[in-house]
Amino acid sequence: MPKISNKGAQMPESPIRKLVPYSEIAKKKGNKVYHLNIGQPDIKTPEVAIEAVKNIDIKILEYSHSAGFESYRNKLSQFYKNTGLPINPEDIIISTGGSEALLFAMGSTMDQGDEIIIPEPFYANYNGFSTASGVTVVPVISSIDTGFALPPIADFEKLITSKTKAILICNPGNPTGYLYSKEEMMQLAEIVKKHDLFLIADEVYREFTYDGDVHYSVMNIPGLEENAIMIDSVSKRYSMCGARIGCIVSKNKELMATAMKFAQARLSPPTFAQIASEAALDTPQSYFDEVISEYRERRDTLVAELNKIEGVKVANPKGAFYCIAELPIDNADTFAQWLLESYDFNGETVMVAPAAGFYSTPGVGMNQVRIAYVLQKEDLIKAVHILKEAITAYNAR
Amino acid sequence: MPKISNKGAQMPESPIRKLVPYSEIAKKKGNKVYHLNIGQPDIKTPEVAIEAVKNIDIKILEYSHSAGFESYRNKLSQFYKNTGLPINPEDIIISTGGSEALLFAMGSTMDQGDEIIIPEPFYANYNGFSTASGVTVVPVISSIDTGFALPPIADFEKLITSKTKAILICNPGNPTGYLYSKEEMMQLAEIVKKHDLFLIADEVYREFTYDGDVHYSVMNIPGLEENAIMIDSVSKRYSMCGARIGCIVSKNKELMATAMKFAQARLSPPTFAQIASEAALDTPQSYFDEVISEYRERRDTLVAELNKIEGVKVANPKGAFYCIAELPIDNADTFAQWLLESYDFNGETVMVAPAAGFYSTPGVGMNQVRIAYVLQKEDLIKAVHILKEAITAYNAR
Repeated sequence: MPKISNKGAQMPESPIRKLVPYSEIAKKKGNKVYHLNIGQPDIKTPEVAIEAVKNIDIKILEYSHSAGFESYRNKLSQFYKNTGLPINPEDIIISTGGSEALLFAMGSTMDQGDEIIIPEPFYANYNGFSTASGVTVVPVISSIDTGFALPPIADFEKLITSKTKAILICNPGNPTGYLYSKEEMMQLAEIVKKHDLFLIADEVYREFTYDGDVHYSVMNIPGLEENAIMIDSVSKRYSMCGARIGCIVSKNKELMATAMKFAQARLSPPTFAQIASEAALDTPQSYFDEVISEYRERRDTLVAELNKIEGVKVANPKGAFYCIAELPIDNADTFAQWLLESYDFNGETVMVAPAAGFYSTPGVGMNQVRIAYVLQKEDLIKAVHILKEAITAYNAR
Repeated sequence: MPKISNKGAQMPESPIRKLVPYSEIAKKKGNKVYHLNIGQPDIKTPEVAIEAVKNIDIKILEYSHSAGFESYRNKLSQFYKNTGLPINPEDIIISTGGSEALLFAMGSTMDQGDEIIIPEPFYANYNGFSTASGVTVVPVISSIDTGFALPPIADFEKLITSKTKAILICNPGNPTGYLYSKEEMMQLAEIVKKHDLFLIADEVYREFTYDGDVHYSVMNIPGLEENAIMIDSVSKRYSMCGARIGCIVSKNKELMATAMKFAQARLSPPTFAQIASEAALDTPQSYFDEVISEYRERRDTLVAELNKIEGVKVANPKGAFYCIAELPIDNADTFAQWLLESYDFNGETVMVAPAAGFYSTPGVGMNQVRIAYVLQKEDLIKAVHILKEAITAYNAR
């Protein structure tokens, strides 16, 4: 019998997908499950995007250019310029989701055995893309006590070896909700320039900031043109996760020519979804104002409710729509499974994402969970109340 | 300045894309270019597929299941069963084009430095996916003199080492048009079982056979369940190249569980295109009858016209919509470039794909070109006439 690859055996399972069989059990028992675990927003996709696809007039669904429609790249460049990012059409390759942009970035900058430094906790699929690319993740721990601020730059210095090729950040962060300040970005710029590394910034939550903070993009750092790679996506900006359209952005010509070879091998990004994404650029500002205002209220509600639970520590998120909470429990994996399999509060329970899956260092974050505030406020209040009752019941087992 | 990866530097450029700047020159000169170089069919996409997308009624464009819509997998399984392939829904993971299915197959079966044997000439992007996966392509040469039939199995035996993990075939073949017989498939089955290898069959041209030959799928080989991996796509079947929907199919449970981890890391295949692909399964048989009949006539026309040129050797294709022709010229790369840059016949010229890019062995196929018969018959006749005049002019330079 033929054997699967070592790489395939090492590919991590999603920390959330592991819980799916238990959520099925909860549903079979007739319990209502509040999903605090997922990043699928309940926000409507802009009508202008859906309508563009409903109104297509094509006879042959053809390949697009491997870098994506020229018209889309032009309009996207203008969109970035309007938000203060000096990005030209030739700095953009349209990808199949931010996921593919990350794969292109890793493939273009790293070989088997090379190392990438990532502040943890981090988006769990960075592990998957790294394993698929044969790259070793070197985590640098950020702490809930600082709200998951950038770790001291000396901590990065200690980890840099001849194999280090890049630092990867998510800004604002999934799962932390932390927004790096301009000063933190300048510190990162200095260290990547000093060591000739790439700075890959996953900025797919760029629009989601709540306290008047200004998002400072990797593309705004003066003199970092050769080192900076931005990852972007329409998934969260327009609540279009199913489109699977993102992009890789850089001013480094050699890097973009290399990424283009990966893009050509897979022919093109999806055509229907590019049509929707191009049209989505006409989404009125009022859409974002409403969405941001809704998320800010949800965040405030969630954090206030969590802080009412004795023994809970929560890092107040500045952006994105997640937060990490430390719970007064022994093991969040066991707790999350128990919530679905064995618990209900008047026929209702909650599903949370155990945070250990967002850390690469074993044994860290064992009593933390990631909570996504993608539910209505009333549901968030109910869900946190259930969580409170559940913690008491769990510890009294 | 940070360095790109060795892998990125080694990523091959598409043999066709290299010619694009020269086709721009031809167009600037006002010359009409007959595109014999591309695999983008001019056949209409079934209306039922386009209409399904035009009639969507969704408010949020959500992620789908990482393996694709359950409804689509069920219907696709039934489609396969109706054509005699015993494929269940759980044997299918929907991918972003056949391209991603190939990446999943390679990632799940091979590690850095492992080897994959591929009869050449082969689809050029197999080189790209192999480089991206850190896998070494070991070519086994098939010959225009046998119509690119399966090379003797002893040739495969000689190439198998402890690092060999799989044999990859394209059936019917791009760029050869060759259709492997049941006997050839059984020979491949025997050798992969003997050496515990995977047999990966890219069958995206399955429907395109012209002489009453029956396509014999890797999924039909008795006892090969653990070794067989099928790659499929809607791109050619329904002239939906821009959908970017394909699938990886296997009965090997461990392989599918592994491929699923790669699928989960990138979240999901595109939603709009899955809707179109699911609807496309209702395409009436008359659509295929017309398409196949059209391609058969084009093939017959193309081969007849090519055979009229002195010194041209053509392998008569049994399937797909390509053929390889050997021309009485010294170098097809130079010739293809010259056709665009320096030649016209009454203001018209042709673009062909030099075949060397489809060989992995250096120096092989230097006087061969791949011709795609995706043009109307009258245009094919004109294009081959221009080719004939051009060969004379080129050799008389």
